[in-house]
Amino acid sequence: MHFADGAPQVNGTGQTEYGKSVVEGLKKEEQIEKASVQKLSEEHDLVLKTFRLLIADLCQQFKGGHPGGAIGMAAIGVALWKYVMHYAPHTPTYFNRDRFVLSNGHTCLFQYSFLHLTGYKAMTFDQLKSYHSDRVDALCPGHPEIEHEGIEVTTGPLGQGVANAVGLAMATKNLQATYNKPDFDVVSNHTWCQIGDACLMEGVALEAISLAGHYKLNNLTIIYDNNQITCDGSVDLTNTEDTNAKMRACGWDVIDIEDGCFDIEGLVEALNKARASTEKPTFVNVRTVIGLGSAVAGNAVAHGAAFGDADVANMKKMYGFDASQRFTIGEEVRKFFEDLPARGEEFVQSWEKKVRAYEEKYPDLGADFRRRVEGRLPENWKELMPTKDALPAKATATRASSGLVFNPIAQACNNFMVGTADLSPSVNMIWKGKVDFQHVSQSRLHSQGGKESGVKGTDMYKPDLKTTCGITGDYSGRYIHYGVREHAMAAISNGLAAFAPNTFVPITSSFFMFYLYAAPAVRMGALQHLQVIHAATHDSIGMGEDGPTHQPIELANLYRAMPNLLYIRPGDSEETAGAWITAIEAKHTSTIISTSRHTLPQQPQTRRDGVAKGAYVLEEAEDADVTLIGVGAELCFAVDVAKELKAKNIKARVISFPCWRLFEAQSLEYKRDTLRKHRIPAVVIEPYAPNGWERYANAAICVKRFGHSLPGKAAYKFFGFEVGTMTTKVSEYLEKIKADDILRQEFVEL
Amino acid sequence: MHFADGAPQVNGTGQTEYGKSVVEGLKKEEQIEKASVQKLSEEHDLVLKTFRLLIADLCQQFKGGHPGGAIGMAAIGVALWKYVMHYAPHTPTYFNRDRFVLSNGHTCLFQYSFLHLTGYKAMTFDQLKSYHSDRVDALCPGHPEIEHEGIEVTTGPLGQGVANAVGLAMATKNLQATYNKPDFDVVSNHTWCQIGDACLMEGVALEAISLAGHYKLNNLTIIYDNNQITCDGSVDLTNTEDTNAKMRACGWDVIDIEDGCFDIEGLVEALNKARASTEKPTFVNVRTVIGLGSAVAGNAVAHGAAFGDADVANMKKMYGFDASQRFTIGEEVRKFFEDLPARGEEFVQSWEKKVRAYEEKYPDLGADFRRRVEGRLPENWKELMPTKDALPAKATATRASSGLVFNPIAQACNNFMVGTADLSPSVNMIWKGKVDFQHVSQSRLHSQGGKESGVKGTDMYKPDLKTTCGITGDYSGRYIHYGVREHAMAAISNGLAAFAPNTFVPITSSFFMFYLYAAPAVRMGALQHLQVIHAATHDSIGMGEDGPTHQPIELANLYRAMPNLLYIRPGDSEETAGAWITAIEAKHTSTIISTSRHTLPQQPQTRRDGVAKGAYVLEEAEDADVTLIGVGAELCFAVDVAKELKAKNIKARVISFPCWRLFEAQSLEYKRDTLRKHRIPAVVIEPYAPNGWERYANAAICVKRFGHSLPGKAAYKFFGFEVGTMTTKVSEYLEKIKADDILRQEFVEL
Repeated sequence: MHFADGAPQVNGTGQTEYGKSVVEGLKKEEQIEKASVQKLSEEHDLVLKTFRLLIADLCQQFKGGHPGGAIGMAAIGVALWKYVMHYAPHTPTYFNRDRFVLSNGHTCLFQYSFLHLTGYKAMTFDQLKSYHSDRVDALCPGHPEIEHEGIEVTTGPLGQGVANAVGLAMATKNLQATYNKPDFDVVSNHTWCQIGDACLMEGVALEAISLAGHYKLNNLTIIYDNNQITCDGSVDLTNTEDTNAKMRACGWDVIDIEDGCFDIEGLVEALNKARASTEKPTFVNVRTVIGLGSAVAGNAVAHGAAFGDADVANMKKMYGFDASQRFTIGEEVRKFFEDLPARGEEFVQSWEKKVRAYEEKYPDLGADFRRRVEGRLPENWKELMPTKDALPAKATATRASSGLVFNPIAQACNNFMVGTADLSPSVNMIWKGKVDFQHVSQSRLHSQGGKESGVKGTDMYKPDLKTTCGITGDYSGRYIHYGVREHAMAAISNGLAAFAPNTFVPITSSFFMFYLYAAPAVRMGALQHLQVIHAATHDSIGMGEDGPTHQPIELANLYRAMPNLLYIRPGDSEETAGAWITAIEAKHTSTIISTSRHTLPQQPQTRRDGVAKGAYVLEEAEDADVTLIGVGAELCFAVDVAKELKAKNIKARVISFPCWRLFEAQSLEYKRDTLRKHRIPAVVIEPYAPNGWERYANAAICVKRFGHSLPGKAAYKFFGFEVGTMTTKVSEYLEKIKADDILRQEFVEL
Repeated sequence: MHFADGAPQVNGTGQTEYGKSVVEGLKKEEQIEKASVQKLSEEHDLVLKTFRLLIADLCQQFKGGHPGGAIGMAAIGVALWKYVMHYAPHTPTYFNRDRFVLSNGHTCLFQYSFLHLTGYKAMTFDQLKSYHSDRVDALCPGHPEIEHEGIEVTTGPLGQGVANAVGLAMATKNLQATYNKPDFDVVSNHTWCQIGDACLMEGVALEAISLAGHYKLNNLTIIYDNNQITCDGSVDLTNTEDTNAKMRACGWDVIDIEDGCFDIEGLVEALNKARASTEKPTFVNVRTVIGLGSAVAGNAVAHGAAFGDADVANMKKMYGFDASQRFTIGEEVRKFFEDLPARGEEFVQSWEKKVRAYEEKYPDLGADFRRRVEGRLPENWKELMPTKDALPAKATATRASSGLVFNPIAQACNNFMVGTADLSPSVNMIWKGKVDFQHVSQSRLHSQGGKESGVKGTDMYKPDLKTTCGITGDYSGRYIHYGVREHAMAAISNGLAAFAPNTFVPITSSFFMFYLYAAPAVRMGALQHLQVIHAATHDSIGMGEDGPTHQPIELANLYRAMPNLLYIRPGDSEETAGAWITAIEAKHTSTIISTSRHTLPQQPQTRRDGVAKGAYVLEEAEDADVTLIGVGAELCFAVDVAKELKAKNIKARVISFPCWRLFEAQSLEYKRDTLRKHRIPAVVIEPYAPNGWERYANAAICVKRFGHSLPGKAAYKFFGFEVGTMTTKVSEYLEKIKADDILRQEFVEL
């Protein structure tokens, strides 16, 4: 096996020679000198001891943190960072690097310490020691954070990382199917996901595991730190399932490692086998001991507390270290890791060379690939959206408007990966000629070319999934059937988005109410500054018969308050266009576009650029008596009530208010001019819990109880959202506050 | 087998003779006349056809709804309601009834139609026909609702019902272990959970399935309507796992039914076998055809749309029915179900007789059982809580205060089932002598008495789970290790609470931030008016090092807006007592008690009865310049800032404001007296997104971005929550508004 470009040698299974040598060296002892085996074994022993004591010291320093898991996983880390993973410490953003996700994020010292040892420049020794300090600029927060060098995703809430890893692996598959050529594997990376016992209990992980098995993501490996301990005690208190059998049932290969605390060779062999898998994702079940070497080894106490000075000193003595020294990393250990930055740069240079040759041979595809690597959309994306004139004049549900304005963009711009939690018929996210993301047999690929990076022929990505309903697809597809897995959908989308900045822009879609299922992942997307766009339909009691379980009342309150998330309720097709433009331009922010199930009239005065301001005046009236604030599906009510009020000689101006957060970002002057709240009272019309509208309105026609199962129109009527009723409420309110000055200053629910 | 009390005969496995007869009759044909087999088969055929046409008509009437699943499940329904389930149509609240949960709630017509056919009085023919009508008092909402006769839980958001059913089955187990005696099985019911393909994809169901297997809930059966169709098409688009193998790996028995559309006999046999299971919950995998008989049979279109007049007419012709007639239920079909109300009353009377005899033989236990059946707490529960004087004067974390005030009550009152999502060391919910809820071998029970209802000896519920950490338990235990399964924890708790009103009062516990994982189930509890109390700790940036993924910023906004949910942030031990009293007294409302990780000083002026009012004046100051609103973990800041302001000659009054919803329920007069917002400005201090405080305050010292990983004190400092900084902010604000009248009317973030 030989690569002309001088890259670290990778064999047909993607296994590095580094990994091969340690395995074969130690397995076939007759072929090499026993002395070198002995030496390597001693080196490993020293590295493991050093690492474990380092973790113990780092927690002991500020008497807190999570030592146990990191200590138990030491051998896994050595296998990964020294032998198995392809990465570049001095070029952390190397595009074709393996992605590593620490789903059990509380063991972050595991990752931080290896980042330090392998030479990531930002992770200086001082920085490493900042864990649990009050240093405001620390790179060692209590859970890994995407902002920092060498961290792929922010984790912490358990289970999320598993779904993120599935998204990262899907990203690779899609890029490979889109760009790789028989002689050019410009994308070939693997995704490694480290988990603990808890991740296997969380629903979001179980959803993602099921989907990864379906997609046959052979480029994904879960490494299970099976220490059988969680906070409450041993895992058998609450989980006695046959995990391996469950994983196999979900379509995964399983490899067991019995001595996970020490068996680096076995781990390397297993992980390389996982990388070489051709048909399935791999689950490596690694038995470890939490807090190995400490007095609380194997005990839940080792999970989330420092061991105490005496125990740490004792560990050091037992390991033959000087108990009076802290943070000891000997020269031999430094040496053990010192080749890694250079190896990493070889990866980078080899890849860059390959990409240049690729661009030469395939200039169009090469330019497109470069664009994706740089996270740019095609320049003309905005022109693909119909203008206001080109949108239908007839009443249209804004969920349909979403399709009208966005489908042409999704079709033309391959950054967008569009998925749905089994609501394709409802969410209108299918574009003409869409191809589903589905698996393609790797054995077929191999039979055609010997390895993924050397496939021959052009039909290599033809679909081989024969579904009962006849819809198929392949890995180049950009439409994702997530199944009824809302939470995994959003978390997987975070993984897609995290692959590289804006290389993918994931779209999720479901009923708005089910974004409560997805909420923890929506939050993680916003927190990580990931551009993920959530197309949420059926966003009011107007959705009707499905009743209170499907009618959002309080959910907007969560998303309007969530930092770095734009929650936008457009009122007609034009505003829906504005919502999508805003979302697509928000490169570091997540957005929910919240649309109606039912048809809404087109408002002549709506403006897509008004949406970008969060709120704008739709109908001005000098010397107005009242401002009516209309929102989303109920914007038309505000317009109609204003008309009715006019008949009663009450002058109403109308504001359209699709997004609080965008409005807050405007100048004080713009806000005051728009609201005029200090001069005339404002009434908001929205069938949600009103909390927070107090900032912009003096009164609300709102809903403070759960909904009611009725046809949409009847539901609106039941809750008083008829134009006549609302008009009366507003005019009576205006009368009342004339007589009651205190009431004028209070917020009133009408 | 003979029961003296004249109840429907139940054999050793709990199988009714009704069920037995149909199975044995049809299997052992030589023993009975072929003619009667033929007759029964013809009856079944007619019932199935009638039922399927009824569903088609009910959807066609208003041209909407979900016909396909209900039609496909017809035979399952006949097996359940005619032969297998123990229930009483004329006494729907019969305590020992089997519980039926329709987790695929969109197929609600399935349940409504059987409620009608089996004689539930409320479900008149007219009511049945109200499905999708605009009748405001309809008993046929788009998903089943707990308020209505014969419905055990509200379902709709998929997967929830599975977890609810696990809770219902756990309730039975706990009552059995607590009250049953060898000669008295006062509780012996089974829980049946109907699901579709989607429920098996949802994380909440997967979490609950894993836990049910661990608990060996042999009194729980999932019936899987395996039609391999969801909205997007065939299930193999997105799920190709080996479901049976997965269920077995999770500790479930699996029974396959190949011809689920017609094989009533096979279904009855399978369901009776499931009821008779001694060691495991049972998963009955029933192959059906969605929309059987319609032109769209087996197609996703059959899921959520009426078939159209032509197709419905065609179905009728094919079935030999008059196509011009709608809603046909022939006399023979009525007759088929007519014995069920009387059979039900026999169940009721037999059970009541048994309970009377039980009360006679075991008067103390009998009285306790009666109390539980009636959903009452022991009278003295409030006295068990320490008075303010008896609470420690030293600074205490309110999560610890929660334990101090509630543990004695949990210990003494067996209504409380207290669980945690693997945070026992953090949430302080363990009382002295607590026993864990864990499984007990049914085979041991059986070997001692032949059947559960006839067990001998007193050690029958001794623990047989040998955990690695040594903690065991039994079914009488009331402390639940839910594992790291927050969503299932809350949904299972809804099931416990739904068993019978207030017979169980479930407590959940976790970090507040993880109640975002649990949110869909918390919502369902509130929506169903279930009393579930959620003990949420680590509720502010003060929780520290775990960082932004664990620091709530926007979550309170969701819960403060959620109808029928009390979100309470107590400020010290006394207020924590008030929060628990309020929660325990709220019989039809869910509560979140939101507490601190870190210690808080005890405030001399706090009052537990103040909490019940939502907000109250802590420190009054006549002619005050400003009102400071303190909340929860930051109440102490408001008190301290008031002191500092005094030194600057600024008079501040202090309000403690633990709960918006409770405050909103007070009189206008009380609210105005407390707030005085129309006279002096108010500033709220809370490190959350401020949205909604605008109603009560004019300015906020708040946080609008995600948190930061720092030790608690440093985190507060980082975000400006130091007394000096806050004092300056308030005084500067007061200066500013003197000069700017518009600003005085606006909400200002300081």
